[in-house]
Formats: sequence, C-alpha cells, structure tokens
Amino acid sequence: MIVTVTPNPALDVTYTLDRLTPGRSHRVQQVVQRAGGKGVNVASVLTQLGYAATVLGPCGGTTGAELRHDLRDRGVLTALTDVEPPTRRTVTVVEADSTATVLNEPGRLSAHEWDEVAARVRTVLREPVEVLVASGSLPRGAPEDAYADLVAEARSAGVPCIVDTSGPPLLAAVAAGPDVVKPNQHELAEVTGTDDPAAGARELQGLGARTVVVSRGRDGVLVVTPDGASYAARPREPLQGNPTGAGDAAVAALAAGLLEQPWPDLVRTVVGWSSAAVLAPVAGMVDRAAVHDLTVSALGGEA
Amino acid sequence: MIVTVTPNPALDVTYTLDRLTPGRSHRVQQVVQRAGGKGVNVASVLTQLGYAATVLGPCGGTTGAELRHDLRDRGVLTALTDVEPPTRRTVTVVEADSTATVLNEPGRLSAHEWDEVAARVRTVLREPVEVLVASGSLPRGAPEDAYADLVAEARSAGVPCIVDTSGPPLLAAVAAGPDVVKPNQHELAEVTGTDDPAAGARELQGLGARTVVVSRGRDGVLVVTPDGASYAARPREPLQGNPTGAGDAAVAALAAGLLEQPWPDLVRTVVGWSSAAVLAPVAGMVDRAAVHDLTVSALGGEA
Repeated sequence: MIVTVTPNPALDVTYTLDRLTPGRSHRVQQVVQRAGGKGVNVASVLTQLGYAATVLGPCGGTTGAELRHDLRDRGVLTALTDVEPPTRRTVTVVEADSTATVLNEPGRLSAHEWDEVAARVRTVLREPVEVLVASGSLPRGAPEDAYADLVAEARSAGVPCIVDTSGPPLLAAVAAGPDVVKPNQHELAEVTGTDDPAAGARELQGLGARTVVVSRGRDGVLVVTPDGASYAARPREPLQGNPTGAGDAAVAALAAGLLEQPWPDLVRTVVGWSSAAVLAPVAGMVDRAAVHDLTVSALGGEA
Repeated sequence: MIVTVTPNPALDVTYTLDRLTPGRSHRVQQVVQRAGGKGVNVASVLTQLGYAATVLGPCGGTTGAELRHDLRDRGVLTALTDVEPPTRRTVTVVEADSTATVLNEPGRLSAHEWDEVAARVRTVLREPVEVLVASGSLPRGAPEDAYADLVAEARSAGVPCIVDTSGPPLLAAVAAGPDVVKPNQHELAEVTGTDDPAAGARELQGLGARTVVVSRGRDGVLVVTPDGASYAARPREPLQGNPTGAGDAAVAALAAGLLEQPWPDLVRTVVGWSSAAVLAPVAGMVDRAAVHDLTVSALGGEA
C-alpha cells in the first residue's frame, strides 16, 4: 500500500467559456468538477495504473462530501479525516484559445484538526505501508512544520517518504531528512536562490534532504542521490497537452518504483509517467496506453 | 404571505482578490457564499423588512443544500422542490479597485422537474397568497413558456402576479397577461427595439402586459398602468454603492405595496427600497435604516 497525504485538498472546478474579460458577466458553457490536490492526484494515477494507494487528509463541508464521492466513483481508496472547515475549491477558467485562469480558494484548518490528520497518518503507518507521499500546499492554520512532522513519523515507522511541496514548508520538511523531495525547477530556485538544478539539489541535501528529484518540464527530470550520483532523463519528443498534474504523475512513479527500480531505470519511468499525464486531459490521470512507450523511449541515464 | 418563485436559483460565491489577470493563477483572499437568484433576493428583502415571504423553486445537490441552509440561517421561509441537477453557482470575482467579473454557471432542469415546481406553486396558491412574484432566468430544460404557466396559475387562483425576467421568457410571460412586469430599461429595449421606456412599456401592454414598471438605474422608475396613466420617481441624490440586487428590492417593494398603496406613493416606495439596496453591501439586503428616508425623499409623482 502506498499512502498519500494531502494537507490541503481541493474540489477542482473547471469552467469552459469563450473568452474571459475582467469586469464583465459571462455565461459558463460547461462545468466539470473533480477531487483534486497534489496527493489526491498522485493516488489517482497510482490507482489508475493498478497500484493500491490510499488518500489521507482533511475533508469538510459539502465540498468535502463531493470530493469524497468523486474519489469513491473513481475507485480511489480514502482514509480522510472529517474537519469543520469546508474543503476549498479551485476554479479554473479555460477559454476557447486554451488560456487557463486559476482561482485558488485558501484552505483552512485548526492546529487541533491538523493534529488529528497527523494522528491518522501515525495509525496508518502501523499497517504495512511501502511508501508515504506528502504533497501540496499547507492550509491556513496548519503548523509550518507539518511536513517535517510527517517525515519524522515515516522515519520512526521505517517507511520511506517522498515530499512534494514548496517554499517554507519545503525547507521545514527537508530539515527532517526525507528520503526524496521533488521540487520543480522553479520551486527549487525559489528556496535555494540558484537556477542551476544540480547545485540547488546539493544545497537541499546540505540542509537534510537525501535524494532530490527536480522536475524540469520539457527538459525532463534530474535526480541527485545521497552518494552524489546523478541521473537525468527527458522525453524523446516535445509533448503537446495539459501539463497540470504532470508533477503529480512523476511523484506517483517515484512512489511506485522507489523500492523496486534502480535510479537509471526509475528516472525514465518518472519521465514516462509524467509525459503520459501531459497527454491526459485532466490532472490525476495518465494516458495509460502511452505510459510504456513513453518510458521506453525516454532519453536518459547517468547525468 | 408573498410567494416568490425562482426557476433558476444560485449559490452566489464571491471571491476577493487584488487583481484578476487572465492566464494567471490567483490566491483568493476571501470567499463569501450566499443563497442567490432574483426571487430569492426578493423574498430576502421582504423578510428583512418584516413581511412574510416564501421562496419556491428547484433545489438540488450539495450546492442546493448550502442554499437551503443559508436561507434557513437568514430566516427566509422556503418551499423548495428537490430536483436531481445540482443548484448552479455564480462566481463573482471582486478586485481591489471594485472591478467585478461574474461567471454564471448554467442551471439545468428536466421538463418533468419543472412540472413539479409548477405543481408546487399551484398547491401553494390554494393558501391565502397576496402576491406571486416570479423572477430571473430560466434553467436549461425548462419550457420557454414557464413564466406564462405561472402567470396563468396565478390568474386562475385570483392572485396578482409580478414577473421580472428578460428576453423570450419575458415575451412569453407578457402574452399570458401578468398584472405587473418589471424589466429594466435594457431588458425592455432588447425585447421592444425602442430606447424610449414609455413607448416600450406601451408596446408590452399591447402584447398583453397590464402594468409595466421600468427600472432605470440612477434615473429611477417609470410605471405605466393599464389605463394609460404613468408615474415616475427617482432618488433625490445619486447613490454610491452596490447596484446588484437593486432591481430585486424594487420588485420586493412592488410586492409589498401592490395591494396597499396607490401608484403615486408606491412608485416612491419602489425607489426608496431599491436605493436602500444600493447602500447594502450584498444583493438581497437593504440598508434598513435608510429605507424610510430614501422613500420620503424620492422625487416623483405622475409622469
């Protein structure tokens, strides 16, 4: 079982319309609504590809009920914690020319409620868990070292953990010694101040991270392991599609392969899964038929 | 009891943020959520001012549950009809400079479900009802003559009715002979082709309407009665505030005064209530302290 924790899940609402003009009133043509949040997307991709994954995190209000319902419909296992604040929404407005405008509601949680989520993680870690994934932003009200807590819980349970977050929560997590962190290149530059991904990765290692995986969009993925070795891979050809959720598919690949594949193979699997996510129309899904070919065709190896 | 029918109610969601930039991702600073829709706002204003009013209309899904809950919290009586499609949302994005961008989800209803709403109206009209108000757009799936049906029901029950809608549903309603229609000047121009409100009002009367009340924003209100008399009133001073819902407050005043006040008085009441709505921060509310003064100070009489 792979366990993903999403401290700040969302009900993702997508509106389709011709053109968004600030100051005007618009008729929305189509409304699509899905469970979202980075850890939710990771578990969704894993489930789609036949891996057992369970979503943990807070869930509240009618939006939380919709999130829970959608995950059940998609066959994604959950062990969510009921909380009082309603699960936030994200609204993405997609225009006819594909311009996407995103409105992220803030998530809220009391410190007490975060403790309940963390206690649930602790309980689940007593079961046989292969990997713990913790992904995404933190809601208002959660402690800044929430990810560090989760890393500590995983370490004391002897379960490898992967963290995908940004900013101060990333720095706090890194200090707790996570097995893998997966910033994208912008998030890495933001916390380290360098645009060189290899240098940034080494800097995070200096702060406590073990393996650092940097997702670089069209430039693929760079992995720097604790022994200083590095591996890189990238798609053979540029891909057209929806990059939202490609990072989550990369994390899903890391979770699936961490205990099974050596890095020269896993780095290509990561590229294959995230490329297949670009080809899928919504976040949290991959083009299943394309996963194998995109993995085999990925260019890479030791960097 | 005043009964308002809202065929296409909404959960109104307001997002506050600094500046809306298409193509970008935004952090929403504040989220406020309220029951909305024109007939809902009419009943809300009436309730706020001490009149007994009941909201009828379809209600579905978790958004419908939120709408119902909010009305209960506000003390507004409801006799809603449960339907399968979720109640639509409207999202209004308000920027720091007060620019407001509106995203209206489409409402949906099956013809069968509309029949259930109409049957509920018929049942309620067997009770002592002073006025029936029918307001707003029609959801997809409702028949275009839905308002005409409601007018016919009210007439056969001997209950005066007020219709506030636009476009083809307005024309269909007018043909059924409603006691009052309240287009705004733009809606009137759209269906009659003339920018002259008096000429437009007479044209709607030629199509079957009895009294026509034209709301004209800062220019106040024009009433043309079936005997050809006309009355006008306007605020003494221009008002700064939130015009959303001012038309609904005007309809609320019409509903409250239709059986009580002669037109020279009622036309000023209509201006007073809609002006007091401009001073209230949200639709469906008036600045209660200002209602009396704004009514007394309104300039008007026979036009």
